[in-house]
Amino acid sequence: MKAFVMKEIGRVGFADKPVPRPGPGDAVVRTTRALICTSDSHTVSGGIGPRENLTLGHEAVGIVHEVGSEVRIFRPGDRVLVGAVTPDWGDPASQNGHPSQSGAPLGGFKFANSKDGVFAEYFHVNEADANMAKIPDGVSDEAAVYCADMLSTGFMGAEKGNIPIGGTVAVLAQGPVGLMATAGARLRGAGLVIGVESVPRRQKLARTYGADVIVDFTKEDVIGRIMELTDNQGVDTAIEALGADATFQTAIKITKPGGTVSNTGYFGEGEFVRIPRVEWGVGMAEKTIATGLCPGGRLRLDRLLRVVAAGRVDPTHLTTHQFAFDDMERAFEVLDKKLDDVVKPLIVF
Amino acid sequence: MKAFVMKEIGRVGFADKPVPRPGPGDAVVRTTRALICTSDSHTVSGGIGPRENLTLGHEAVGIVHEVGSEVRIFRPGDRVLVGAVTPDWGDPASQNGHPSQSGAPLGGFKFANSKDGVFAEYFHVNEADANMAKIPDGVSDEAAVYCADMLSTGFMGAEKGNIPIGGTVAVLAQGPVGLMATAGARLRGAGLVIGVESVPRRQKLARTYGADVIVDFTKEDVIGRIMELTDNQGVDTAIEALGADATFQTAIKITKPGGTVSNTGYFGEGEFVRIPRVEWGVGMAEKTIATGLCPGGRLRLDRLLRVVAAGRVDPTHLTTHQFAFDDMERAFEVLDKKLDDVVKPLIVF
Amino acid sequence: MKAFVMKEIGRVGFADKPVPRPGPGDAVVRTTRALICTSDSHTVSGGIGPRENLTLGHEAVGIVHEVGSEVRIFRPGDRVLVGAVTPDWGDPASQNGHPSQSGAPLGGFKFANSKDGVFAEYFHVNEADANMAKIPDGVSDEAAVYCADMLSTGFMGAEKGNIPIGGTVAVLAQGPVGLMATAGARLRGAGLVIGVESVPRRQKLARTYGADVIVDFTKEDVIGRIMELTDNQGVDTAIEALGADATFQTAIKITKPGGTVSNTGYFGEGEFVRIPRVEWGVGMAEKTIATGLCPGGRLRLDRLLRVVAAGRVDPTHLTTHQFAFDDMERAFEVLDKKLDDVVKPLIVF
Amino acid sequence: MKAFVMKEIGRVGFADKPVPRPGPGDAVVRTTRALICTSDSHTVSGGIGPRENLTLGHEAVGIVHEVGSEVRIFRPGDRVLVGAVTPDWGDPASQNGHPSQSGAPLGGFKFANSKDGVFAEYFHVNEADANMAKIPDGVSDEAAVYCADMLSTGFMGAEKGNIPIGGTVAVLAQGPVGLMATAGARLRGAGLVIGVESVPRRQKLARTYGADVIVDFTKEDVIGRIMELTDNQGVDTAIEALGADATFQTAIKITKPGGTVSNTGYFGEGEFVRIPRVEWGVGMAEKTIATGLCPGGRLRLDRLLRVVAAGRVDPTHLTTHQFAFDDMERAFEVLDKKLDDVVKPLIVF
Repeated sequence: MKAFVMKEIGRVGFADKPVPRPGPGDAVVRTTRALICTSDSHTVSGGIGPRENLTLGHEAVGIVHEVGSEVRIFRPGDRVLVGAVTPDWGDPASQNGHPSQSGAPLGGFKFANSKDGVFAEYFHVNEADANMAKIPDGVSDEAAVYCADMLSTGFMGAEKGNIPIGGTVAVLAQGPVGLMATAGARLRGAGLVIGVESVPRRQKLARTYGADVIVDFTKEDVIGRIMELTDNQGVDTAIEALGADATFQTAIKITKPGGTVSNTGYFGEGEFVRIPRVEWGVGMAEKTIATGLCPGGRLRLDRLLRVVAAGRVDPTHLTTHQFAFDDMERAFEVLDKKLDDVVKPLIVF
Repeated sequence: MKAFVMKEIGRVGFADKPVPRPGPGDAVVRTTRALICTSDSHTVSGGIGPRENLTLGHEAVGIVHEVGSEVRIFRPGDRVLVGAVTPDWGDPASQNGHPSQSGAPLGGFKFANSKDGVFAEYFHVNEADANMAKIPDGVSDEAAVYCADMLSTGFMGAEKGNIPIGGTVAVLAQGPVGLMATAGARLRGAGLVIGVESVPRRQKLARTYGADVIVDFTKEDVIGRIMELTDNQGVDTAIEALGADATFQTAIKITKPGGTVSNTGYFGEGEFVRIPRVEWGVGMAEKTIATGLCPGGRLRLDRLLRVVAAGRVDPTHLTTHQFAFDDMERAFEVLDKKLDDVVKPLIVF
Repeated sequence: MKAFVMKEIGRVGFADKPVPRPGPGDAVVRTTRALICTSDSHTVSGGIGPRENLTLGHEAVGIVHEVGSEVRIFRPGDRVLVGAVTPDWGDPASQNGHPSQSGAPLGGFKFANSKDGVFAEYFHVNEADANMAKIPDGVSDEAAVYCADMLSTGFMGAEKGNIPIGGTVAVLAQGPVGLMATAGARLRGAGLVIGVESVPRRQKLARTYGADVIVDFTKEDVIGRIMELTDNQGVDTAIEALGADATFQTAIKITKPGGTVSNTGYFGEGEFVRIPRVEWGVGMAEKTIATGLCPGGRLRLDRLLRVVAAGRVDPTHLTTHQFAFDDMERAFEVLDKKLDDVVKPLIVF
Repeated sequence: MKAFVMKEIGRVGFADKPVPRPGPGDAVVRTTRALICTSDSHTVSGGIGPRENLTLGHEAVGIVHEVGSEVRIFRPGDRVLVGAVTPDWGDPASQNGHPSQSGAPLGGFKFANSKDGVFAEYFHVNEADANMAKIPDGVSDEAAVYCADMLSTGFMGAEKGNIPIGGTVAVLAQGPVGLMATAGARLRGAGLVIGVESVPRRQKLARTYGADVIVDFTKEDVIGRIMELTDNQGVDTAIEALGADATFQTAIKITKPGGTVSNTGYFGEGEFVRIPRVEWGVGMAEKTIATGLCPGGRLRLDRLLRVVAAGRVDPTHLTTHQFAFDDMERAFEVLDKKLDDVVKPLIVF
């Protein structure tokens, strides 16, 4: 079968690989739709170290092709969503309430990391009964595929942010995860959602997904503006959706004492992420810093699909580009180089 | 001044009383709008025991008339919302995170209970800085007054219900609190909100406030229907918004293992509220039963007003009747006897 | 092999059965020590319905005899503790944080329920890597076997009770689970632990495990005494460790507003468990009712073994009787009929 | 009256001041015992900016001298403990569950900060009913005074650390707060408590208060040793009790994915506190960072006194020195310069 791989650090392309086979609890899925993620770019640029012919991608939906002998919920032909994170559910980290950390730190993130990813005609799913969900009839493949990572991670940012009904929230950066964090803040009942973003297309999407106010850091003093919008109190919750030291510092500064900084960003650079000491209340202002990695699991996926099926959030506004799988190299370049005002490129198999 | 009082058990009417004076931390408010609550009826029928010439009512907004020497936030002339529950914030119960229980069980509920209520030309507010909120310019008195109890109690039902994003929720009874619990479930991100109600006007309001499905217990088997709607799993959260033994039992039965029964109802009758033993998993199915009394406090009120100001929820659809304060006796009769398909009567001063 | 079974409702005895074989992720364990539980009695008396030749027992330790092809952590010869509850870790209930409810309400409780139990020379363990733990060298088989259910369930009562450091706790009934709830309350930092019990041997054990005060319901008014001990406030946490309607009612009554009733008891009788309406604050006093079923899993077992290894709690004081497996019929009779002041009978294989 | 003050940055001494008078809800206490804290040193060295003749000290017990007209719980002559932090309980931060942040970040910390402290013959207590507690007969003044800050802050480190029963905990630095965090970890049921400390006297105290293992950073690789002690998993909870960038980094590194870093330390230096990026799981390992400021309030104080009265923790082992109030200058010097292996100097009035 055809697979789109990282041939080595800095180089991608197609490779021919055998169709995978399932172990007793596993499934193999024939891919129908996939999304490219900026973390695919990080991987190719060496973010997780050298790899040779590793199939890329972790966001996909498809049709079940084959299941192992112990799989009870799924059968060939089922239209399924697969989580970007596919935990080992019996692992102590999972038993501890942190399945995305099963096996190792970030160990639930297997696709295009500890095993081949989903940018292939077929891909393998471990613990299939626990890590896939059937897609309801009213939900399109395109809408469903956003639940694999974008909705799950973005909403997690809101959930871990401990937002009270009527609370104030700032979402720092309105990329795809930030936009879904914005939608997530609205889903949790925030009374004021501030989106920080400078790119007009993303500002517009932020409004679509529920931002009440946009703060453009190229034109305004972000901290001053947010303090003004919150009667000088700071926000209940700041969601970091970029993964940059400067943004993280801003998040600490704009959060009220007793509030929460919720991180969804991948910090790819530097030895340290720095907490501004004084604004952190010299370690005593009760500003909690929470982090997470995309939650997976059938229960989670079913809930996200229910949100989409009920029309609460329509993620397909994120699709700015569409490519056939054969045009994967071009698609990858568009996202990698942030060409043409891209948000998310959808890949059609 | 004129006050609408419970003269004795079973009898209401007007009385003349002196305008109250504030202690050092208190305020006196000139009433502009108020709402009648079914609990006013409970009180008159003897629910809290005998009272003589007790001013009724706990839901009101108004204009600050006078403040005590230690009040710092408010001044005469401020347009304010006052919580139905006005806790003693220094009490150990408040320090324990349960301000509505300050002083005694349910002790935060002072109006028309341990002191005169709000159905008067002026009323007294203890710990004014902590128990009132300024009404933003864009919010009408009518909208604001619903925040005193209806939004606070209804949303609490959703909040204590531990609803996950995309979770399933049933709200049992769509009276004013149940309707706000429905709105609250939507605010917390529920993926499926089931409203149980038989009265057409309330069914329609339930849809307005976000119910996805209405189950009419006069026409359907509630438990069977809800199990069907949840793939036989039961709901994540059942909100009891009636205060009846039978409804409470249904709530236990329709909740999935590991789910939450969240009570907002006032149980006014019988020696016991009964848990169905088997469906409660013989005490081991991890169905948590949570309860609460309307949260008060300036922080809470500010957040509720923000929800209203931002247009997330418009509570004024609940107003089915409007009366001048002079017509209070008729207004009380309409609610007490549930005449004319009443939901909430608004009183204009 | 020899197995001690429920032949039919009301009748027990030995049966000959084949040694079980493991599936790919399973293990078979050769039993070395086991404990009899009152729930074995409930089962025999028909508590879970009719069964034919069902092997009884769910508390055991042993030596790994055989493992399936996918088991990675354990090998034949390992000395292991097996949880009384052995969840399906990939199930949605487990993903929801309620593994004891996996598959069905109380579905994690498989031994002597949905499959053969541990009162046999060998027994089968599903998802072995997730449901067993190696016993550290310094921990005896006898101490370890108490971690299967007694420590896990008793401590859970304390954990779900939300005990603050210095808080007040009452544990209603000092049977083996109640005694471990008493120990658990101390482990969580309770400042006052009140044990309610009338049997002298159990009163003495309660003091050993950390009760500060014993209240004997045959000699004192339990509610009055507990209110007196708590300055008329009620306790922060009441742990019900009997499973009786009357005890549950007492638990509600002695809990302060904002406190928690934590249930560990199995309610075996009656259509209802009854909440006293007025003392429950007419549904508004914020007295949360939490329940649970013995937590399982390797992480949990490892933590319990650490508590025992570190000498924090010595569960072997619970052993009042010891029998060889061949004397199982007598052992069962002793516990079933509560003869000879029995607390826990240890079975030696 | 005589008061021990910070005359200016870097200079302390006695001053004569009038005895304070209470407002309506306040009290004035005649000091009997006090403790000096390292934060008094920080203050004198300019940590909170310049002050002129500010009375120092925040840890004290005494006898009620005078109460305001609205004080209901206390009377002159009562022997009382006063919290180091005395919140404004009606403030929105308090209503939000963060009373130590009332009024401003760290705003509950009033003594020797926004008002005169307790190193005087008399001192003033705001919201007396809410911020003091009667000392039980069986508790000495010396034991009680440790509850003002040391027990409250140290235990908070354990409480915010989310320690499971049987969990693993490292407490970084065994100064007085670290020692009480060690005691707190034991009170929460930790199965392994690792104390990191190099000073022999403090190592010995750490064992007294419950550390199972001492790691001496001058002789061992702390991270390597802790990973070894935890089967290479890291601890569930790392408590930072020093307030140093290097220690904080260690805390992040030794915490397992899904674990908690709980900070009690005051960070007094540098622009940033730095998170090691990779060991923080590039922002995705679910290592929560929690912080807090000494909890105050009568409920808290009563609970701490109960812990002491019940003999769970004896804080008086911390007293290494004792001085009369007249020798305050010498006492301050001893702590300030860490002379004579000091842990805590007790001041007798």
